[in-house]
Amino acid sequence: MTLSRRLRLTLLAGFFLTGGALGQGGHPNLVLTAADIAAIREGLGRYPLFDRSFAEARAVVESALVRPMDVPVPKDAGGYTHERHKRNYTEMQLAGVLYAVTKDGRYARFIRDMLMKYAALYPTLGTHPKAASEAAGRLFWQTLNETVWLVYTTQAYDCVYDWLSPAERRTIESKVLRPLARFFVKEHAAEFDRIHNHGTWMATAVGLTGYVLGDTDLVAKALYGTKKDHTTGFLRQMDLLFSPDGYYTEGAYYARYAIMPFFLFARAIENNQPGLHIFEYRGQLLRKALSAALQLTNTNGAFVPINDALKEKTYLSPEIVIALDETYAIYGHDPGLLGIAKQHGTVMLSGAGLAVARGLARVPDPPPFAYASMEMRDGGDGLQGGVGLLRWGPVENQSFFLMKYTAHGMSHGHYDKLSILYDDAGREILQDYGAARFINVEPKDGGRYLPETKKYCMQTIAHNTVTVDERSHYDGKIEVSEQYHADRHFFSASDSSLQVVSAKVDNAYPDVRMQRTSAMVADPHFIRPVIIDVFRVISGSEHQYDLPFYFMGHLIETNVSYSAHDRSRAPLGAANGYQYLWNEAEGPAKGMTQFSWLAGERFYSVSTAADSSTQVYFVRIGASDPNFDLRPEAGVILRTRAKEHVFASVIEPHGVWDGNEEFCRGARSSITDIRVLASTDEGTVVGITDLDGLSWQFMVTNGPADDGAAHAITVDGTTYRWTGNFHLIRQAESGRE
Amino acid sequence: MTLSRRLRLTLLAGFFLTGGALGQGGHPNLVLTAADIAAIREGLGRYPLFDRSFAEARAVVESALVRPMDVPVPKDAGGYTHERHKRNYTEMQLAGVLYAVTKDGRYARFIRDMLMKYAALYPTLGTHPKAASEAAGRLFWQTLNETVWLVYTTQAYDCVYDWLSPAERRTIESKVLRPLARFFVKEHAAEFDRIHNHGTWMATAVGLTGYVLGDTDLVAKALYGTKKDHTTGFLRQMDLLFSPDGYYTEGAYYARYAIMPFFLFARAIENNQPGLHIFEYRGQLLRKALSAALQLTNTNGAFVPINDALKEKTYLSPEIVIALDETYAIYGHDPGLLGIAKQHGTVMLSGAGLAVARGLARVPDPPPFAYASMEMRDGGDGLQGGVGLLRWGPVENQSFFLMKYTAHGMSHGHYDKLSILYDDAGREILQDYGAARFINVEPKDGGRYLPETKKYCMQTIAHNTVTVDERSHYDGKIEVSEQYHADRHFFSASDSSLQVVSAKVDNAYPDVRMQRTSAMVADPHFIRPVIIDVFRVISGSEHQYDLPFYFMGHLIETNVSYSAHDRSRAPLGAANGYQYLWNEAEGPAKGMTQFSWLAGERFYSVSTAADSSTQVYFVRIGASDPNFDLRPEAGVILRTRAKEHVFASVIEPHGVWDGNEEFCRGARSSITDIRVLASTDEGTVVGITDLDGLSWQFMVTNGPADDGAAHAITVDGTTYRWTGNFHLIRQAESGRE
Repeated sequence: MTLSRRLRLTLLAGFFLTGGALGQGGHPNLVLTAADIAAIREGLGRYPLFDRSFAEARAVVESALVRPMDVPVPKDAGGYTHERHKRNYTEMQLAGVLYAVTKDGRYARFIRDMLMKYAALYPTLGTHPKAASEAAGRLFWQTLNETVWLVYTTQAYDCVYDWLSPAERRTIESKVLRPLARFFVKEHAAEFDRIHNHGTWMATAVGLTGYVLGDTDLVAKALYGTKKDHTTGFLRQMDLLFSPDGYYTEGAYYARYAIMPFFLFARAIENNQPGLHIFEYRGQLLRKALSAALQLTNTNGAFVPINDALKEKTYLSPEIVIALDETYAIYGHDPGLLGIAKQHGTVMLSGAGLAVARGLARVPDPPPFAYASMEMRDGGDGLQGGVGLLRWGPVENQSFFLMKYTAHGMSHGHYDKLSILYDDAGREILQDYGAARFINVEPKDGGRYLPETKKYCMQTIAHNTVTVDERSHYDGKIEVSEQYHADRHFFSASDSSLQVVSAKVDNAYPDVRMQRTSAMVADPHFIRPVIIDVFRVISGSEHQYDLPFYFMGHLIETNVSYSAHDRSRAPLGAANGYQYLWNEAEGPAKGMTQFSWLAGERFYSVSTAADSSTQVYFVRIGASDPNFDLRPEAGVILRTRAKEHVFASVIEPHGVWDGNEEFCRGARSSITDIRVLASTDEGTVVGITDLDGLSWQFMVTNGPADDGAAHAITVDGTTYRWTGNFHLIRQAESGRE
Repeated sequence: MTLSRRLRLTLLAGFFLTGGALGQGGHPNLVLTAADIAAIREGLGRYPLFDRSFAEARAVVESALVRPMDVPVPKDAGGYTHERHKRNYTEMQLAGVLYAVTKDGRYARFIRDMLMKYAALYPTLGTHPKAASEAAGRLFWQTLNETVWLVYTTQAYDCVYDWLSPAERRTIESKVLRPLARFFVKEHAAEFDRIHNHGTWMATAVGLTGYVLGDTDLVAKALYGTKKDHTTGFLRQMDLLFSPDGYYTEGAYYARYAIMPFFLFARAIENNQPGLHIFEYRGQLLRKALSAALQLTNTNGAFVPINDALKEKTYLSPEIVIALDETYAIYGHDPGLLGIAKQHGTVMLSGAGLAVARGLARVPDPPPFAYASMEMRDGGDGLQGGVGLLRWGPVENQSFFLMKYTAHGMSHGHYDKLSILYDDAGREILQDYGAARFINVEPKDGGRYLPETKKYCMQTIAHNTVTVDERSHYDGKIEVSEQYHADRHFFSASDSSLQVVSAKVDNAYPDVRMQRTSAMVADPHFIRPVIIDVFRVISGSEHQYDLPFYFMGHLIETNVSYSAHDRSRAPLGAANGYQYLWNEAEGPAKGMTQFSWLAGERFYSVSTAADSSTQVYFVRIGASDPNFDLRPEAGVILRTRAKEHVFASVIEPHGVWDGNEEFCRGARSSITDIRVLASTDEGTVVGITDLDGLSWQFMVTNGPADDGAAHAITVDGTTYRWTGNFHLIRQAESGRE
């Protein structure tokens, strides 16, 4: 009987494992089980996607077997030693699976030999030479990577546990695995207990270590926090980091990252403490978490770049492979997931991956993922605002609009209450910049977040929402912003031809209240839905209000008589992100302002109610950026000074352009006027007309949301009446051709 | 016997049709023949691609049949009436094919009714209201579109000729077809006789009219010029516009456009005067023309954007469908064309299209198009310089380098002798800007070329070649530039690991001689081939030499200690294109200059021999551009003042970056030094070293090209010896890991 086995039996007498006793099935017991291995052996050669993934794993490991093994002394934050240690843990994890399935001793020896090298190296390491924060690692510059190392390595160790000699196990456990777990639980207790994706990763690393070593104390700390009092730990992370709808507080980009440890640890819990019913926890939270993450992608698969986010991340990322495969396997083999699984082109080498490969063998042409309009609440209690998603059309040609009215979202959150983004046919049309970072690119500050992330990307002016007096929401102070959130006003997507989201925030500035209402309107008048966007700002005193539209594509036309700053150029402002915008041109509005751009094979226009008090700025990102960290993309900013103002706009896709066929139609917006007919605390009324005689009135309720309430506003002798939260009167005087 | 039939028989007694008598096969006789129609009827339902194209044509025409017919009075240059007339001719041409195949009278009536409307409209038209040049049309703003109208419409007329009543034919011929042909031959005689793609289009339009009307005089003028003396006309266009290698003088973008009338008229000639053996003319020139146009595409299908060019044009354009289908049908069913035909997804509705569809039915997975390294001579005589194309690797991951040393290339030519472009894996890496134009986009100056095309895009500084004293080659004067061309020095692609192109120009500036030699070197030291680029400029007096590299992607790193103009920005110069470049940053070189950028999933670096006399400018396109006509892309300019100078660079692809997998390697260039070891009139020697101990010497002969000549240069006691035009000594002191 080994030490750890004895320890486990001893501790099984413990009293704190509310979910039941640790599993006694031997090893492997983390992600793979004996039953999985049997099923995989049975399934090999039958399910092409699994076979391919298995063959790829074999190729990776076989090539590692013939290379000299290298466990280098850590040096860099994104260079050779960093990448080497990452590849080492990947290769060990894959070799573990291969050993488990094939029982080929070469794979086990590879893991043993590498772990012995780590056992020799790790005790010699101090703080990493490139450490840059309190979360300094030893093998890596930050503990985050070090936890990932442990998550992978425990899986490998699990697979060869029975193959190793007791002496080898002692060495590996005492020199690497336990010291690492101890390092996290003791020296990084604060991070371990933090409700944050770093905490989740750490809990998972320690939890997996606990299960593989049979150390119930480590497991308990992972589940319930270092004090084992349930105030932190994995379950608390599940309570607080996700809303009841599965929305992850940091946003979609980090949801993608965090979801992996959630699923891996949950799988290990399920295998070891099935009595905890972890996959049923909070009404199947993990199922909802994956679903929410997928719904928060553009139809090209990219996660919506709200908060700190990099746009290259899609649902093809390896974390989503794990989460999707597990979700498919656990929650009833939902065929709606197979469309994305097919795009993955790979599956987990586990029972879950086998299930997906089997599903795809049965349904080789699965339906596309079912994107839907929906609201997702933010906050563990679901009461901290949220995001509203409006969608229209099939996946291959879909309009997608998002309004963000969440809480701050922790350290990667942006000051962008009521910001919007708009994608069309899988292409960004009105963008959220995301973050400034070239991930893993050593020459770009070691691949870390670049300073412009905080100084520009997080600032309000970097977003499609209103900045007041050139200062960011909550004055750009996270300790303030974290105390607040925006609020839903209403959300309605039951009528696909008129979907509306409305939200408010009264605390982003001391004396300014804001309400934004956006409607996606499908109408035969337009080739695709237009967005009516009504942004009302109210204050007791006069302020400067700036509303940008960061458009993606090439500016084609504007009706603004502007002066171009095309011989010398200066930043638009001095602080709060304004210093990063070149002022390329500016001019006053005369009535409705309109600008159009070309993006791919379509034109888009924004037409906004305005008068001569509105100044229009054509800006480009990249001023005050001596290191060329930012992408030189463009925006148009509408600026006005007032106590109260309504920015009422129509965002309109139009026309078609095909350079290959030399075909172009509808390059010009058809909107001829948009004006604010009334705006009181009861409601706002906007009138819209177009070339073909369309004459719409859009009403939105500004008071409390109430589907049944009747409203009436009289302005200049005209009374506007409607019932409910919003209303659209469509009076097309004549049809289109 | 109809009038035209009688006329034809009368004229057949004529003496000038050297190629034999006009065919007497009746109608149709242009692109379709009775034999084609029989084959199509036989083939329908058997060849999926043909069936699909036929069904698409039917869908287009059926939808036209139920729409009110509109033949509007011409108004705009890219708006509704422009597009309507374009769609009308397309619909008529397709309806003609449908009638010919199905004999369904609805199609014939559609053509007749529309032609009668044109017969009513055309005589009432004066010069088009948006006409902007001497080549003003009536139906369209420029005659070019009008000739295209006639090219399509004669095909439609041809198909229903026998169905129409004599009175209808008289009306249509006398009110539209003959007046249009007369308009071209008489009022636009200069353009008709011009050796230029406009002349080709006009000759084709008039030639097709001649054949369909049986008017041998029109045919003779189309073939031999308005004077019928062989000094102009279609055959002369074939003599002068293409080089013996099939290179089209205006470059690839216009080759794509011009090739369509060449093939259509040739097809009509073949059908009516087979004795002319038009497809054998000049050693199967038309086969070579298509091959050259296809070889002048990036592997993503886009035509190389030398001279005025728009980057959205690919070999999927409809003109190439026609040229490729005809080439396939006529020249031995080359299976190497089927890969592109499959991408077309459509074929001509003709005998040629049928042949391609049949080929694809037999070979459903054809090989990709066989791109190859090659030199193409320019000039009808093949003695006016050319282009050198170096390629390496399979189509899906190919390195592609081009050096341009052609003649001017007519009115759309650029002042860019010895310019280069470089693509990798189907992506532009070092770009040629092409032209500033949003084709067919009415709000952008009616879709015409924008003024920045001449003022920036054509200028030397807009290209990856040397500008002297901030003035363009030939001082930017076309009348001068057209008298000259650059000269090949040598071209060698027989060794795929060392492919070299070298060219010279001695007349771009009064007292400066230039020679550029570029070698694509594949070597185990590098993941992909590097380019060694040696640009030697010599003068008797001191000049400023500027060499830009317009890189595509995001700047990652440079070793230049620069001052960033990031708080205020001004243009780099005042004239000759310099006014369009923002000076974003500048700094002096200290030894080798190096900059790196990220493009897609790879990094690229340019490392250039330099010393402190070299100043480096980081520029961005878009200054002095108040209408936002230009794309804001970036470049790096190396500037030096000297009598003689050698810009010796290594262009190096390196590393890999995957944002989804968070994987990055090799973000930094491995080149540690590059220096010019010797440069005399005999030769230039460049030394290159890298981190791994690579130590190369690249020698190039500057005197007359001679494969067998021995060379020796002694500098500072070291003698460099080589034989032939170039030599690369690869002394890797140690291997890579």
